[in-house]
Amino acid sequence: MSNVVEQIIANYAGESPGVLGNLRRLLNSGSLAGTGKLVILPVDQGFEHGPARSFAPNPAGYDPEYHPALALESGCNAYAAPVGFLDVIAAKYAGKLPLILKLNNSDSLGGPDQPCSALTAGVQDALRLGCVAIGYTIYPGSGLRNEQYEAIRDLIAEARDVGLPTVIWSYPRGAGISKNGETALDVVAYAAHIACQLGAHIVKVKPPSDFIEQKEAQKAYEKVPKATLAERVQHVVQASFNNKRIVIFSGGPAKGTEDVLEELRQIAKGGGYGSIMGRNAFQRSPADGQKLLREAIEIFRASAKG
Amino acid sequence: MSNVVEQIIANYAGESPGVLGNLRRLLNSGSLAGTGKLVILPVDQGFEHGPARSFAPNPAGYDPEYHPALALESGCNAYAAPVGFLDVIAAKYAGKLPLILKLNNSDSLGGPDQPCSALTAGVQDALRLGCVAIGYTIYPGSGLRNEQYEAIRDLIAEARDVGLPTVIWSYPRGAGISKNGETALDVVAYAAHIACQLGAHIVKVKPPSDFIEQKEAQKAYEKVPKATLAERVQHVVQASFNNKRIVIFSGGPAKGTEDVLEELRQIAKGGGYGSIMGRNAFQRSPADGQKLLREAIEIFRASAKG
Amino acid sequence: MSNVVEQIIANYAGESPGVLGNLRRLLNSGSLAGTGKLVILPVDQGFEHGPARSFAPNPAGYDPEYHPALALESGCNAYAAPVGFLDVIAAKYAGKLPLILKLNNSDSLGGPDQPCSALTAGVQDALRLGCVAIGYTIYPGSGLRNEQYEAIRDLIAEARDVGLPTVIWSYPRGAGISKNGETALDVVAYAAHIACQLGAHIVKVKPPSDFIEQKEAQKAYEKVPKATLAERVQHVVQASFNNKRIVIFSGGPAKGTEDVLEELRQIAKGGGYGSIMGRNAFQRSPADGQKLLREAIEIFRASAKG
Amino acid sequence: MSNVVEQIIANYAGESPGVLGNLRRLLNSGSLAGTGKLVILPVDQGFEHGPARSFAPNPAGYDPEYHPALALESGCNAYAAPVGFLDVIAAKYAGKLPLILKLNNSDSLGGPDQPCSALTAGVQDALRLGCVAIGYTIYPGSGLRNEQYEAIRDLIAEARDVGLPTVIWSYPRGAGISKNGETALDVVAYAAHIACQLGAHIVKVKPPSDFIEQKEAQKAYEKVPKATLAERVQHVVQASFNNKRIVIFSGGPAKGTEDVLEELRQIAKGGGYGSIMGRNAFQRSPADGQKLLREAIEIFRASAKG
Amino acid sequence: MSNVVEQIIANYAGESPGVLGNLRRLLNSGSLAGTGKLVILPVDQGFEHGPARSFAPNPAGYDPEYHPALALESGCNAYAAPVGFLDVIAAKYAGKLPLILKLNNSDSLGGPDQPCSALTAGVQDALRLGCVAIGYTIYPGSGLRNEQYEAIRDLIAEARDVGLPTVIWSYPRGAGISKNGETALDVVAYAAHIACQLGAHIVKVKPPSDFIEQKEAQKAYEKVPKATLAERVQHVVQASFNNKRIVIFSGGPAKGTEDVLEELRQIAKGGGYGSIMGRNAFQRSPADGQKLLREAIEIFRASAKG
Repeated sequence: MSNVVEQIIANYAGESPGVLGNLRRLLNSGSLAGTGKLVILPVDQGFEHGPARSFAPNPAGYDPEYHPALALESGCNAYAAPVGFLDVIAAKYAGKLPLILKLNNSDSLGGPDQPCSALTAGVQDALRLGCVAIGYTIYPGSGLRNEQYEAIRDLIAEARDVGLPTVIWSYPRGAGISKNGETALDVVAYAAHIACQLGAHIVKVKPPSDFIEQKEAQKAYEKVPKATLAERVQHVVQASFNNKRIVIFSGGPAKGTEDVLEELRQIAKGGGYGSIMGRNAFQRSPADGQKLLREAIEIFRASAKG
Repeated sequence: MSNVVEQIIANYAGESPGVLGNLRRLLNSGSLAGTGKLVILPVDQGFEHGPARSFAPNPAGYDPEYHPALALESGCNAYAAPVGFLDVIAAKYAGKLPLILKLNNSDSLGGPDQPCSALTAGVQDALRLGCVAIGYTIYPGSGLRNEQYEAIRDLIAEARDVGLPTVIWSYPRGAGISKNGETALDVVAYAAHIACQLGAHIVKVKPPSDFIEQKEAQKAYEKVPKATLAERVQHVVQASFNNKRIVIFSGGPAKGTEDVLEELRQIAKGGGYGSIMGRNAFQRSPADGQKLLREAIEIFRASAKG
Repeated sequence: MSNVVEQIIANYAGESPGVLGNLRRLLNSGSLAGTGKLVILPVDQGFEHGPARSFAPNPAGYDPEYHPALALESGCNAYAAPVGFLDVIAAKYAGKLPLILKLNNSDSLGGPDQPCSALTAGVQDALRLGCVAIGYTIYPGSGLRNEQYEAIRDLIAEARDVGLPTVIWSYPRGAGISKNGETALDVVAYAAHIACQLGAHIVKVKPPSDFIEQKEAQKAYEKVPKATLAERVQHVVQASFNNKRIVIFSGGPAKGTEDVLEELRQIAKGGGYGSIMGRNAFQRSPADGQKLLREAIEIFRASAKG
Repeated sequence: MSNVVEQIIANYAGESPGVLGNLRRLLNSGSLAGTGKLVILPVDQGFEHGPARSFAPNPAGYDPEYHPALALESGCNAYAAPVGFLDVIAAKYAGKLPLILKLNNSDSLGGPDQPCSALTAGVQDALRLGCVAIGYTIYPGSGLRNEQYEAIRDLIAEARDVGLPTVIWSYPRGAGISKNGETALDVVAYAAHIACQLGAHIVKVKPPSDFIEQKEAQKAYEKVPKATLAERVQHVVQASFNNKRIVIFSGGPAKGTEDVLEELRQIAKGGGYGSIMGRNAFQRSPADGQKLLREAIEIFRASAKG
Repeated sequence: MSNVVEQIIANYAGESPGVLGNLRRLLNSGSLAGTGKLVILPVDQGFEHGPARSFAPNPAGYDPEYHPALALESGCNAYAAPVGFLDVIAAKYAGKLPLILKLNNSDSLGGPDQPCSALTAGVQDALRLGCVAIGYTIYPGSGLRNEQYEAIRDLIAEARDVGLPTVIWSYPRGAGISKNGETALDVVAYAAHIACQLGAHIVKVKPPSDFIEQKEAQKAYEKVPKATLAERVQHVVQASFNNKRIVIFSGGPAKGTEDVLEELRQIAKGGGYGSIMGRNAFQRSPADGQKLLREAIEIFRASAKG
């Protein structure tokens, strides 16, 4: 067994064998198996932004079967999606490719006044579909924060009881946060810390900028190195219980290949556990998407060895 | 057994035999049995618009027995209605005609600020009344979206456990959508996609216009063919998991017979799975209503053969 | 057994023997037993308008024992009241006089912004008190409509399981309805239809005026006869599933005896199933109240024979 | 056994032996045992108004043990308090002195926009602490009325099942009631009636003034005698199901001894069942508090004999 | 066994042996074991104020293992933290160091309009993690007061059933309280009293200033000595059921060592049961933090002997 993986697992001492078993499955799957690093393919953009905005650039992506095939062939650790997408493919992929059920989702047609995704699936669905983990989005900064923190509390407890770990997407957003503030270093680090405090086993945040949003936090950040993304990632890792919780970074909107790769190198250099990359992968042609995912995997494998 | 039906059923691999069994019942009933196509008679307009607006044009329709008789004699696959209407007729029609219980309903006398139907029946009622499926309306775009998505989540799970598939009526409506936007191509495709992601087995939407509502979606639609209704239907079918979920189209307000038939031909040509036609059927005289339903059925049968 | 009663009961085919049994009890009690007609004494006005406004005209009415005695001696089919009033008298009257427990009530001291009665008793109370049915008020047109429709859904299901039928008081009221509109023909017919669709076994509405409230409904009412109350009652009966659900009419505020009797004759002539008369009965002296109830009963008996 | 008590108990025919047993305990305790009259010491003012405002006048009252000792030594029928106060003393006093657990409480530091106390204890607490009854405050006139009526409905049902009767504090307050209106005769009588209709076994209201708040009620009160407090109390007793429910009166803010005694004489003369006296008792010195309670008891004993 | 501890335990007569057992554990742990005094290390500031603001001054504190080690080595009675922090360390520290699970938490990125923490863990988590008590923050003065009082009611009941005592952090805050008012003597005493009335076994408040916030309370405070902090602490102890409930004081923001120690001396002199000190301990260097906690412990040990 991989020492690296077992060192990570040791940070979850006290968790049940069921949860530890599924964490091991995630860390021991795909091309990065045993390195302690993770590259995950998430596809909830059809729900979040609409089908055409998500899949028109590469119409193969309209088909729910496209994505798990892409993840498997590229060597990703896992594939994450809403229940509808998994309903179609789980019978074929469960046990072949670790599946993460994204329990809550939001669309861009309208919704509550303050950001809050709708719970569209439950822990029982994750079991039914043979998943290895549940995923849930919180919006720290939302006026509906309490509803979300309390929902994830219940879900973590229910998932733990059946041996499923929890991935929290922690996206600051809402009345009290400026647009720039959503990726500010202090806010992203805070969002990662909140997710850890809520009991997430794995945390997903956006790569932080060097902006500091909260006035009260300015002083605390005077001595924190933050010039490079690698340094900022390092701070987020520190804020994630001093590296004792797995924190991975999303890639955001589609962009040029070199930009994507440089971002990944910085994340890897800063000690990030990995990347969760959606549009940059599935909006490229099948061949290009696979190529990019494999390059991402190589970057993290290199950082694991380094 | 029909190959066409079994090919459709294969898209639901992973569902329980109970759900698959009732999907087969729907697809193997009426004149379109075995074709993979569906024509359904829905009668919830008394609730939604009031009894006189719905039934004064053909007063036979005030009687709850009128509609299942019309559906059965016309060769429809199924009849869908609220619990009150089914309460009166289920003892007579259960097992003869597939019944779909419409679980939520709205009236036009008043209600919450944002569109949200009231849950007026439950899964146990569907069982009690011998139904083959449940139906539920969501309003993507409503400020009360989360409440609806979460309610249908629970209902789908409960229905699945007792072998009942779910039909979602997906009608975009609410604060952030213009009146024209409610039938815009991007919005209808998005609404169909959301319903699929929520786990619907069958999705019902309105025929889309060529209007594009969301600015962010304009670019994605530049290359999507949308001049004819058939092309637009094809896009909606694509957005419905690349044809892996059954999507049917409603007819909207009563109109001239030729208009109705032409719309149906376009839906059939675009690959739509069928039609759910209410007012255009029951507001005509009994003979004319039956005639129209039979012509609709012939259009879809022809498309199945074609 | 009465053929008339059994013909009515046949409209409830599919209901459990328990529910049918209590419907038979209601229809086979009092002076109108076996006629298919109903006169019911309801006394919730102490709660709704206050004790002095309700009982000062005939102070005997302050005593909870006054009303069931009046109902029994006058030959009414049943007595309906809130749980507090029934708590005092049920031990004495259960089994002698059919009791209907009014489950929700409102007072005129204040309450929520949109009309919504409070649930003040439950189905278990109805069983505990030996009642034959539950009663519930909905306010179609209220912004809190959904809460009410969903509450009655649960109550009907719970009551059905223990063999109790449901009476819905359907009173249109709320933000979108004008004061005149509350008794408009279209609105009253709509309110009766909604109650039937919700699954009510018996519906209670107010006598409709010849006003049409909803613009969209004007056209539909052009050909509906509505000059006399009898004609309007006939339309409401039609809207109540073409006479397949029992619909009865309230009398409203106290008025002159001849006015009351004429209204009852019109209701009877229009095919209404009966009357539910409170203030006009209990605010008269004991002798006069009894006399009026007996005359009402005679009017409906005559219509049953006619 | 006392005939008077059994005559009162007869008004609760239909209640379970458990509830009747605890009502008997209340009526057969203390110096007024067997008279059918009640003097109760309630101490929730620390919660409602703050500790210093409540107990600084007699600092012995800061101690939770002071009050049950005062009640017991003065010969009160019972002692009522929130769960925190009872937690400290119940192990010592349960079975010696009837305890009433006040289930909901409000503080004066802030709260919801419309009056609504918080539920701070439950029926299980009442059992755990050996209480003979539960107490609950409703605010008729509050925009949150429904929440309160529905909560007390559930609590009454739960308490009944374990043999505990319910005391309702009925205090009109909220958006639609003027400050004077809170003690207006029509409003207090209405509040008492509502509490009875909700199923209270014992009702507590404030002594009514001769003001009439509601315009619609003016006419009804023209012939109701209301010049003296005794006459107004008599009307409230009548509104409380014509004396078939126990209604007791609070004393309000601390005042001169003679004022207190005169008020009690009027309440007794008007047929009130007793008094629930807090600040006037525990804010006096221990000796004076005890003396006043004993005088109150004598007034009601005299009225019972008279 | 310590007489002092048993005298305190006697105030909880009536509690189950499980709750008493864990109270004894708390009082018999660390350097203050058997003195009846408490010094507790709480670390929820990462959640409440953000990780950098909390831990940048002493970056060792980013690591969840730092704090329980500090508490244990300094001789604290217990360590209190949110579930995320305890998840990491409980497997190592349960049974060595009494752990208190802070059940609700708030962040400073945004939230509901009125102060209300989110429930982020439950009683089952406290059991799972081997804790000796649960902790919960209420905000008296908040418009969401009822939600909080009702949540803690349920949690206390659930915790009692499994033998866990409850610590309430009572922090007045909200629409009706001025900023100065949050630490006003009347408000702090009231907040402590409310927590006791809600059933807290241990209450935590801030050291009160000599300001009086509520006009209605001015008169009551005229004779209450309040010039020194010791006198004000004495009043808070009196308001906490005349010393029959354990009340401890927080230290607030980091400040100079002598200021901290003087505050602790005043608290000890006024009869406070102890201190709960976070930032002043963990934001100092490890050596200085330990030194300060030991000095705090000596101050309370001295007051216990004195």
